Parts: sequence; structure tokens; C-alpha cells
Amino acid sequence: MTTRFAGETLGHFVAESDWRDIAPALRHEAKRSILNHLGCALGVAQDPAVTTALKVMQAFAGAPVATVIGQGVRLDPMSASFVNAIASNLLDYDDTHLATVIHPTAPVAPALFALAEQRGFSGAAVLHAFLLGGEVECRIGNAVSPGHYARGWHITSTCGTFGSAAGCARLLGLSAEQTWHAIGIAASQAAGLVENLPTAAKNVGVGNAARNGMLAALLAEQGYKAAPAAIEGPLGFALATGDAPKIEDITRDLGTHWEIARNTYKPYPAGIVFHAVIDACLELRAEIGVPPEAIASVTVAGDALLLARGDRVVNNERDARVSIHHSAALGFVRARAGVADFEMPAVTDPALVAFRAKVTAKLDESMPRGAASVTVRLADGREFRKTVTTPRGSLEKPMSDAELEAKFRDNSEIGGFGARADAAIAATWALDEAPDVVRLMDLLA
Amino acid sequence: MTTRFAGETLGHFVAESDWRDIAPALRHEAKRSILNHLGCALGVAQDPAVTTALKVMQAFAGAPVATVIGQGVRLDPMSASFVNAIASNLLDYDDTHLATVIHPTAPVAPALFALAEQRGFSGAAVLHAFLLGGEVECRIGNAVSPGHYARGWHITSTCGTFGSAAGCARLLGLSAEQTWHAIGIAASQAAGLVENLPTAAKNVGVGNAARNGMLAALLAEQGYKAAPAAIEGPLGFALATGDAPKIEDITRDLGTHWEIARNTYKPYPAGIVFHAVIDACLELRAEIGVPPEAIASVTVAGDALLLARGDRVVNNERDARVSIHHSAALGFVRARAGVADFEMPAVTDPALVAFRAKVTAKLDESMPRGAASVTVRLADGREFRKTVTTPRGSLEKPMSDAELEAKFRDNSEIGGFGARADAAIAATWALDEAPDVVRLMDLLA
Repeated sequence: MTTRFAGETLGHFVAESDWRDIAPALRHEAKRSILNHLGCALGVAQDPAVTTALKVMQAFAGAPVATVIGQGVRLDPMSASFVNAIASNLLDYDDTHLATVIHPTAPVAPALFALAEQRGFSGAAVLHAFLLGGEVECRIGNAVSPGHYARGWHITSTCGTFGSAAGCARLLGLSAEQTWHAIGIAASQAAGLVENLPTAAKNVGVGNAARNGMLAALLAEQGYKAAPAAIEGPLGFALATGDAPKIEDITRDLGTHWEIARNTYKPYPAGIVFHAVIDACLELRAEIGVPPEAIASVTVAGDALLLARGDRVVNNERDARVSIHHSAALGFVRARAGVADFEMPAVTDPALVAFRAKVTAKLDESMPRGAASVTVRLADGREFRKTVTTPRGSLEKPMSDAELEAKFRDNSEIGGFGARADAAIAATWALDEAPDVVRLMDLLA
Repeated sequence: MTTRFAGETLGHFVAESDWRDIAPALRHEAKRSILNHLGCALGVAQDPAVTTALKVMQAFAGAPVATVIGQGVRLDPMSASFVNAIASNLLDYDDTHLATVIHPTAPVAPALFALAEQRGFSGAAVLHAFLLGGEVECRIGNAVSPGHYARGWHITSTCGTFGSAAGCARLLGLSAEQTWHAIGIAASQAAGLVENLPTAAKNVGVGNAARNGMLAALLAEQGYKAAPAAIEGPLGFALATGDAPKIEDITRDLGTHWEIARNTYKPYPAGIVFHAVIDACLELRAEIGVPPEAIASVTVAGDALLLARGDRVVNNERDARVSIHHSAALGFVRARAGVADFEMPAVTDPALVAFRAKVTAKLDESMPRGAASVTVRLADGREFRKTVTTPRGSLEKPMSDAELEAKFRDNSEIGGFGARADAAIAATWALDEAPDVVRLMDLLA
């Protein structure tokens, strides 16, 4: 048996995959990922981070053939990918591959839709390329985790570049060898730092992943090559960016086990470890049925990660999305946690400010990662407790199609596209039958 | 005294530098760097790596306002930067900051000229921005060396992104704070792997450095921000990409000591450690005055790096440019080492093939880095030896202006622009007096 390079094996996998071999459940998961992605991008269509990226790109963009989601304009495919990837991931409200904390769809889907608009590929071709690109992305992510992120690499941006390159290579019909080169060229473009996560520089990394992955595929299509071991070589991606990578994770059970099938979707636009807090508070509120004034104190217990990220003063929207106190306050005061509930009016809402002061965070080393235990003490002395270990949206409790549709409608409303939401949802569910992506993209333009 | 962030200090330095404080010798060095850069790009105008990059970009490029050197077309500034940076560095025949092995000009100058063509900046503004961008690039390179390159990072690509961002920020007139953000946004775009150096994927890294640095500045101009410690933070660029960075090197003596003044230019399109071999052989040939047939054997002694890189079979052009045997053969057989002497006809030239077989490489741990000692044994038994420790083009023996002009003329001939070479040389030397870069760029179009 010949040992292949990792990129070589991935190249064959991507180039030789047959849509007819993709199980219905996996095809459906691809559409769920796309629906969630498009909704997230629509929801922030008016955010300055998105409109600024659009404005900068417009001054340099070529033939306007690719839709910028929720904007009235089109750009060339590379520029459109950049803006759409930024939008999809802007609030971290998109999807999560929990093993790596990669947001898989934002860097991959925008490049595929943009190329499909330019060259007329079918909906099924886009869905297939998405699954293959997302699979490459998550597998490379698995191989370099956890050392990669711990060292400072924003894994959605870095591994997203591979995902976009592999997906675009498939869509363009590249050979196995060309796809291998595209993935290798992506290795020389993978960038993005955790240090920059609280700022717009993070968005640039995500946008570039989509844009540069497409560039890698386009260059490989025209004959550009990369080193055979661009991923696993002694001076290649895995060792340069990570400590103790597990290269075999890239190709183990390739084609039979799908990492992208483990994609999850967020019900709340908050950091993923806060979802258990929100769920527990929502459930307690429904069960106890008392107004916030009747609550004397709330104690939230969780592991070290929850406390390190979430025990903080809330001064702005970014704080609110990673706050134990704000999460609990929303559950008890507003009984919901939608996009608007993390924006500035909510940050400064006197009822939420007052309730946040009643919340205490407490370390409990026995709690699993992503879990939370909430104890409520009422003014009358009664005490209630709820522990959530598998929050809504987790692998064990996935969002239903109906919940994803509701999330899409909410996002569409916020972005000003509510009237078209149902048509866009229907077009997404029918994407595997669509001869092109024109109708769906027109609904989002 | 307040401790500043590295990017903050750089931001002030770049935004507040005054052209009137730049010494004449430094201004002149900027023009030497530019002349060398433009010539290198012209020389490879017909290389498939360049024309392919151009072709890919053309399908996506916006308003054609920026010259692609040696091509009959213009592209938008981001796309033109990408292609011109690739061309400048393609053969590694461009410049070298020896302490870091950064090629400083390729990632920086293309972005500046392209922006200057779009917005009408003066020649002096471009030269000034180049010095500032190159300074930022080399200083960040110093801080992360040698761990950065040793870990697999192609330092020209990674640090070039900072150089382009800082230079473009200056040219666009960004404030100190905006420049700080531009540099921080560059940190999330810095990429490029040593593993990919033998392939076209290397070119993508260099092209992206120019293109993405410009993007960083344009986004910062419109309000995009980065983390204060994007460079030196615990999850920032320096620690993510390097081991044991020396952050203080970024700002020490900033404004009084100039790293970019230590730029050097290559007389031969070969790896820099082979220059001493070529020089020694050229000198021996001139002194001994015998035809190659009279030479029985040649022994080249050098340090471990020279042997590790250069003791190899020569199968193609890339091999020839890093071969001890080919370097020696050129010195004795052709008495020159120009661009054509490393191309396929030279690789397969029977006279060179025969002579390469007479050459033996020998480790001599006592030889300094970059030096070579060549011993010639003639058929008649006589022996001659020449040791070169400071080759032509080194800091100690810099190429003269006349030599740089001759190199430019050679490159212009190869690229098919010989007739305009003298006019382009004159326009480069007069760049600091030019109201814009139009005349110079027109000569290269």
C-alpha cells in the first residue's frame, strides 16, 4: 500500500465523490447549513461591518455577477465572497462544528454561490461542493486541534481557507491532482488570529478564507502548483500553526464518516457555552412563573471556561454576547434571547441592568464543558434549580427544521427582508432540484 | 513613561514621519530598491507564473487603473499589486534584508504604485511610504527571527503584509491610530509557508502580502479596527508564528536607525549563499585565464547551509539557482551568471553538464555563512584557490548604481522592454521630483 500525502487523499476524495452516493440525510444537512448561513447574513445586512466591507470592495471589484446578500448590489465573485463570509459569521450566530469550534459554512458557501452565479452551476453541484469543502475544512481542523487554536489561530479563518479551496475546486471540476494543489495553495494563504477576535480584524480573516480559497482553486485550475506535503510537511501548515497535530485524523474513514454531518446551529446569538445558561433560565421561568421582581438572586454554576469567558461587566454588545449575567437576565426578564436582545438598547435596558446585578457566577469543576446549573432564590425564600448539559442546538438536541426556519424568518425581519423569507426558505429546501442558484440569490439580493 | 503597544508606536512613526527628515542617502536607497524591483518584474514579464496570475485576476478585476509591469494591460490596484509582487520576487533575484532574508520591496512597492496610480500620489510620497512600510516589515521580521522562518513561515510573505499595510496607510494619509489598526488587520492576514517555496504556491503568498496589506489599510481608512496587541499579545502574530520573539526589536531606535537602509541587491539570480561561489569562480577564471577543458577538478568549500542547499543534482531551473555545481560551472565556462544562464538551455548545455561533473562540494565548518572557498586543480597539476567572504551585492560590497542600472537593462532586454530601459532608469532616479508616477508606469506598461 502506497502512503499518500494528506492533500493527495483529499484531492481524490473531493474530485471523485459522486452525488448519487451522498445519503439523503447528508444532503438535507447541507441545506440546513445553507439556510442557517443565508439567514445569518441577511440579519446583519445593515451592520456597518458589512456595509463597510462592501464599500471598500466596490471600489476595486470587477464584473458584478455575484449577489451580496441583503444588499442591492452585486460584485465580482471574489469580492462578493469576502463580504458574504463576513456577514454570515459576524455575530457568531452561524453554525459550529463543536469538536473544533469551526464555523464551517461562512468561509465555504459564499465562494460556492458566487462561482455558481458566475458560471451557472446547479443547486445540487453547490450542495455537493459544500459538503466536500466543509468536510476538508473540519478534518484539517480536527488534525490541528486543540494546539492550533490554543496557539492563537482563529480556526474558522485558517481551516476555512482549505474548505473554500476544496469546495471551489470541486465546483470548477478540477482533477484530483489540481484539487491537491488548490488545497496546498490554500495552506500558503491560511491566516487569522484569536487575539483579533474582539475586533473587525476577525471579520477580515473570515472574509479572506472564502476569497482566498476561491483564488487557490482558480490558480490551480490554470496550472499553479503547491508542495506535495503543504499540510503535513516539516515546514508546512500543520506544524507551523499547531503543536502535535494528528495528521491521520485528516483522512481516517474518509467518505464513510462525515464530520460536516456533525454541524450544529445556534438558537441564540451568544457564545456557545452560554446556551445552557439561557436554556436553564428559560425553563425555570416557565416552571416557576413569577415576575423578575420576585427573584432575589440567581447563581450560575459552570466549568472554568464558562467562568473565564462569561463572568464580566457588560458594557457593550460584544460583552452581552459572552456574559453569564446578561444570559440569565434575558431568560428571566424577557423570556427570549434573539438578536435584538443582545444589542445596545438591551445592554442599557434598566430592567436587564437591575437583574444582571442579582446574578452570581460560581465555579463548579464537576460541570461538563458547555453545561450550566442555575439556582434561583425567590424573595419568599423558595429555591429552584435546573441543570442543562445538552442545550438546544447541541448535537444531542439539534434545532429542528421548523426552528431553523423560524430563525431564518427572524433574521430576515431584522435585515428588512421579511416579506421574502418564506419564498427563500422554500427555494433553499428545493436547492438540490434547482438547475441554478439564480432564483434563490435573486430573493436575497 | 507609558508603555505603548508595538503597533501603536509603529502607527505614530508611520503617520508622523516627515519627508524633510529623511536623509538624502536613505531617499536614494529607496530609489535603488525601486529600480531593482521594477527591473526584476520586467525580466519575468513573459513567465507563465506571471501571465497565469494576470489571467486569473483579469476575470475578477475592477476598473483598470493600475499598471501590470511589462504587460499591455492594467488592473484594479489590488489585483495589479498581486501580479506585480509575484513578478518582482519570482526568481528571488530581487532584494534581500540579510538579517531576516526578507525580500522587502516585492510585497510593498507594488501596492504603493498601484494606489498612487489610482489616487494621484507623488513620486516622493511613494518613496516615503516605501521606506516606512519597508521599515515596519523588516523590524517585525527582526523581532520574530529566527524562530519564525525555522517554524515554517515564509517571512517575505508574512512580514510583507505588514509592510504593505503600513506603506499604504501612510500613502492614504491615515492617522496614527488608523495605521495601528491597519497593521493589526495585517496580522490577521499574514500567511505563507516555507514548505511551499519550491512551487508557485510561494508566489501566491508574496502576491497576497501586497494585495492584503492594501486591503488592511483601506479597511482601516473606513473604520475597521484590530486588537491593540495584535502583534505581541498572548494570542497574537508574534507568538502564534514564532518561538521566543524579541518584541523590543520592533521599536528600538525607531526613526534614528533604519533597517531598510540595510537592503541589498543581487547581482545573480541565484540563492544568496551561492553568490560567493560565483564570485570566486569568476575571479579565478579571470586570473588563471585557461579554458574549461584545462581544468581537472573544482572543490567548493563552505558551511553547512551552503552544502545543505547546494550539493544537489541539477534537473531544472529551480535546481540550477541553488546549485554549487552549476554556480561554479557558470563562472568557469560562461564567465557570467545572468538570468539566461539559469534557464533550461543552460541546465542541459553539454559544456555546463560536463563541467558540473568536475565540481565537488566540501563542508568546512570554519567558513562563515555566505562565504565560499574554491580550489581549482588544472590538468597540468597546478592548483589555485580563492576565498570570498563578502560577495558582490553584500552589505560590505554593495552593488553600485551603475551595476543596478546594468541589471535593469539586462532584465528589460529579457522582458522585451530594452528600448525603454534608459528612460525608465532616468524616471526612477527622478522619482522624488515627479508630481505623480504616471510617466514611469507608462514606460513599464
